[in-house]
Amino acid sequence: MQTLADIGEDALIRRMVAGLKLDHRVIMGPGDDCAVVLPPMKGERLLLKTDTVVEGVHFTADTAPRLIGRKAMARVISDFAAMAATPCHALITLIAPPETPVKRVLGIYAGLRGMAEEYGVNIVGGETSRGDQMIITVSMTGTAPAKDWVSRNGAREGDFLFVTGQLGGSIRGKHLRFRPRVKEAHWIAANMPVKAMMDLSDGLAKDLPRMAACCDVGFQVVNEAVPRTRGCTLAQALGDGEDYELLLAVSPKMNMRVRDEWRAAFPELKLTMIGEFVAKGHGQALNGGGWEHFR
Amino acid sequence: MQTLADIGEDALIRRMVAGLKLDHRVIMGPGDDCAVVLPPMKGERLLLKTDTVVEGVHFTADTAPRLIGRKAMARVISDFAAMAATPCHALITLIAPPETPVKRVLGIYAGLRGMAEEYGVNIVGGETSRGDQMIITVSMTGTAPAKDWVSRNGAREGDFLFVTGQLGGSIRGKHLRFRPRVKEAHWIAANMPVKAMMDLSDGLAKDLPRMAACCDVGFQVVNEAVPRTRGCTLAQALGDGEDYELLLAVSPKMNMRVRDEWRAAFPELKLTMIGEFVAKGHGQALNGGGWEHFR
Repeated sequence: MQTLADIGEDALIRRMVAGLKLDHRVIMGPGDDCAVVLPPMKGERLLLKTDTVVEGVHFTADTAPRLIGRKAMARVISDFAAMAATPCHALITLIAPPETPVKRVLGIYAGLRGMAEEYGVNIVGGETSRGDQMIITVSMTGTAPAKDWVSRNGAREGDFLFVTGQLGGSIRGKHLRFRPRVKEAHWIAANMPVKAMMDLSDGLAKDLPRMAACCDVGFQVVNEAVPRTRGCTLAQALGDGEDYELLLAVSPKMNMRVRDEWRAAFPELKLTMIGEFVAKGHGQALNGGGWEHFR
Repeated sequence: MQTLADIGEDALIRRMVAGLKLDHRVIMGPGDDCAVVLPPMKGERLLLKTDTVVEGVHFTADTAPRLIGRKAMARVISDFAAMAATPCHALITLIAPPETPVKRVLGIYAGLRGMAEEYGVNIVGGETSRGDQMIITVSMTGTAPAKDWVSRNGAREGDFLFVTGQLGGSIRGKHLRFRPRVKEAHWIAANMPVKAMMDLSDGLAKDLPRMAACCDVGFQVVNEAVPRTRGCTLAQALGDGEDYELLLAVSPKMNMRVRDEWRAAFPELKLTMIGEFVAKGHGQALNGGGWEHFR
């Protein structure tokens, strides 16, 4: 089977970018020292994010190449959803052993490109290098109106906590097939008095304390209310990670009718209230685990 | 010695970003799902680039950590120089084995931060993950006036070829200590009828044919004119790579007095004419080697 060492970097890149679809915002795509794109429009902010998937950590040698690429792209898009922003342009870094089959790399790129096209993201450049294991890093720009992006740190005592979807058991397949909650996040920013938002990547047990720390508050979660994936225990829902659902803190002044409007807008995705922020030092600790990258 | 596994991701990130200097363009730095920054100014374009250094490829286990970080940051800045652009914001991805000493990672970050500060680049976020070898990826945004950035592909038959500095022998130390040619590139864009430019990372023997292919021309290099680092053969000057000097194609209508002005502006850096672009299919092939990533 043809390997990366057989064809070399320049030929690999030519095959990766062949037929790439780029929209009018791209002035200079892959092939120059830098990509050149139109800046955000007046009144918008520029958002930046990078994220990595590593063989043996985020996927295995058995994972279908398209799904690896899909996941690498979707994880970053999910971070733009978490800010109620719109992803725009991506740079792809591929590290791979020289003996990697060309077909595997092109399969990963097909996954990256499919997900990018679906969410209106241009792949404008990237980088390749050899290394001991396969690693895909996606760096992305996005935009949001200057007044409308949602940070992690704007909530306070008394705000209600909601999550989208169900938590836990992602390893059974969702971690490769999840849909970043971009349109849901835009709906939330437009229709709810949301004060803080993030996407759940390391598990509620790890990510909720992070959001609470950013907001300088404690939290109280009603364990029974946490929406679990079918067949999952509470510990799994809290600790498995890779849910890529939205966690949001909303002003208690929210009109609860908004939950009916949510059901009408997204009939197949639950929006569940799971607790509230309380004064710092009060509330609970979540000892459900969560993903720790260096352990 | 304390390792990454000992302190975990959150504590590592806290130590990496402690005391980070960010300028007024940064609205939200490290710690949220995305960084939020001011967009380029009216009349400017947004430029994007990513680049990676891999242990065992671009540095070794013996390389001083500060120099690893310095190199990772300087390589990307050099790509903005190649477009006559100005680098602005960076995202850092660190892959490292869990047994890596915390001190080594913090040393690399000191190198990244030092170089970033020197060139006015904000480190606005990043990502960490475990992996089998140390890898640092830097993704960067930059800006350039809409009319003034320089691509690789604007030159034609008859244009003169110049390089800055001396080529070859980078492995003796320059590959870790080079200075990206940002102010030199801005000077060139302002003072010379430059039509194409790139930075030399894989060696003139590999990079010049790339630029010629982008411009759809051939090239003729006067071997004796190629400026060699002291003690280097022609083959080394053409093939060693990692020079991080500028290669530029300039209209033959250039007033040669500009070379005196260059000497006045940059007395310690040579600007040397090495040849010209000729009709496609004419000229020469450069068989001096050059760096091939997957071989």
